[in-house]
Amino acid sequence: MQQNIYDHPDFFKGYKQLRQSPLNYNNFVEQPALRRMLPDLKGKHVLDLGCGMGEFARFCIEQGAAEVTGIDLSENMIAEARRHPSERITYVQGSIEDTPLGQYDLVVSSLALHYVKDYEGAVQKVAKALRPGGTFLFSVEHPIVTASKQGDWVKDEKGNKLYYPIDHYHEEGQRIISWYVDGVIIYHRTLTTLLNGLMRAGFTLQEIEEPIPTEEGIRLMPRVANELRKPSFLIIKAEVGR
Amino acid sequence: MQQNIYDHPDFFKGYKQLRQSPLNYNNFVEQPALRRMLPDLKGKHVLDLGCGMGEFARFCIEQGAAEVTGIDLSENMIAEARRHPSERITYVQGSIEDTPLGQYDLVVSSLALHYVKDYEGAVQKVAKALRPGGTFLFSVEHPIVTASKQGDWVKDEKGNKLYYPIDHYHEEGQRIISWYVDGVIIYHRTLTTLLNGLMRAGFTLQEIEEPIPTEEGIRLMPRVANELRKPSFLIIKAEVGR
Repeated sequence: MQQNIYDHPDFFKGYKQLRQSPLNYNNFVEQPALRRMLPDLKGKHVLDLGCGMGEFARFCIEQGAAEVTGIDLSENMIAEARRHPSERITYVQGSIEDTPLGQYDLVVSSLALHYVKDYEGAVQKVAKALRPGGTFLFSVEHPIVTASKQGDWVKDEKGNKLYYPIDHYHEEGQRIISWYVDGVIIYHRTLTTLLNGLMRAGFTLQEIEEPIPTEEGIRLMPRVANELRKPSFLIIKAEVGR
Repeated sequence: MQQNIYDHPDFFKGYKQLRQSPLNYNNFVEQPALRRMLPDLKGKHVLDLGCGMGEFARFCIEQGAAEVTGIDLSENMIAEARRHPSERITYVQGSIEDTPLGQYDLVVSSLALHYVKDYEGAVQKVAKALRPGGTFLFSVEHPIVTASKQGDWVKDEKGNKLYYPIDHYHEEGQRIISWYVDGVIIYHRTLTTLLNGLMRAGFTLQEIEEPIPTEEGIRLMPRVANELRKPSFLIIKAEVGR
């Protein structure tokens, strides 16, 4: 059974406030890079794995996508997403592992796959759900961030960030983190597992990105400048065989 | 002008002792993985960039390679290599940047490209020197290791390794390290630069590896087990367009 942390009341409350504020990491670091790496969306059939509150699905429609399917494990998230209905968007509540997929030109997943236990199974499922030459574009927490079980910057006595610790790199598997609530489970995977798993599933790597904050982000939220010191996210763009 | 640290007398003396000892990191971590990732060598024309004392060139001949060209900037290294002459090996003293290349089926480079300032230029030169479908297999120091300017494990007062520090990740360029002598220059590059540079040069990524120590290595040299805590090396295998 997949952990469904987004339906934990305290977690969801905190997360919703975060995402509804314009001042958040995703807006200044991960989303600008992910969107820059998108192929042309006009007329495309898009699947969004871990669609959350549907912001990205709506963005795809604005960019001309023909249809978007958004899947999310969280009832709360799907309920929020359905508050902005569109004839061209279908939301499905369910896990990436258990939800039957159709056929798509593009599969996008923003910061969701590090919650999935079986990465290679998920990637193979995506490969089968893509039309020949289709694109898989996804972001995960960077292996640099997920490796250490300590999971936070090492600070001096004044609270200044000295450096980010690396440890346990080749010890893949669960990491228990605190994010709004204690006990959030994510999975650490090495870069080798992330990339070779894609290639074994028939993908050709096209581009990666370790996104840096936008200038606006650094101005409005100075602490995002720490992203220049250690990357939080890894974005991967790959094409399935033609 | 390229730094030629291997011709510094103190450096060379220490390095030669290291490589002539069977107890060294390369033998237990990097070389087993690099050799496992090699394509079939029978009848192949091989270029070894940063060939050092020629061990790998001789290995290729033993595995059936038709011809090997070894290039190294260091006169000392090339002189050592030439003490084991072979009709099928040609050694050339010169830089990767300035030495004219022929046409090869395989280009190998073990722990040399982090000394090269212009990575993308080197990679493009390799792409042109490979026959269609040819393989580029190379190892570099892992971006995790080269990022921080501190460049060593953080230890407690007893000298125990607590964790490896990450910092300055997106600040690419020179890192001055101490290895036998002070002032050895290497270049930190992000994973993004390493991989996207390859793809821009027309390569298709085939496999990567963040090598872990062999069991024999951990038995004979227990400190190599620290490689499980943080990767020191990144090995990349790519194919040029057919």
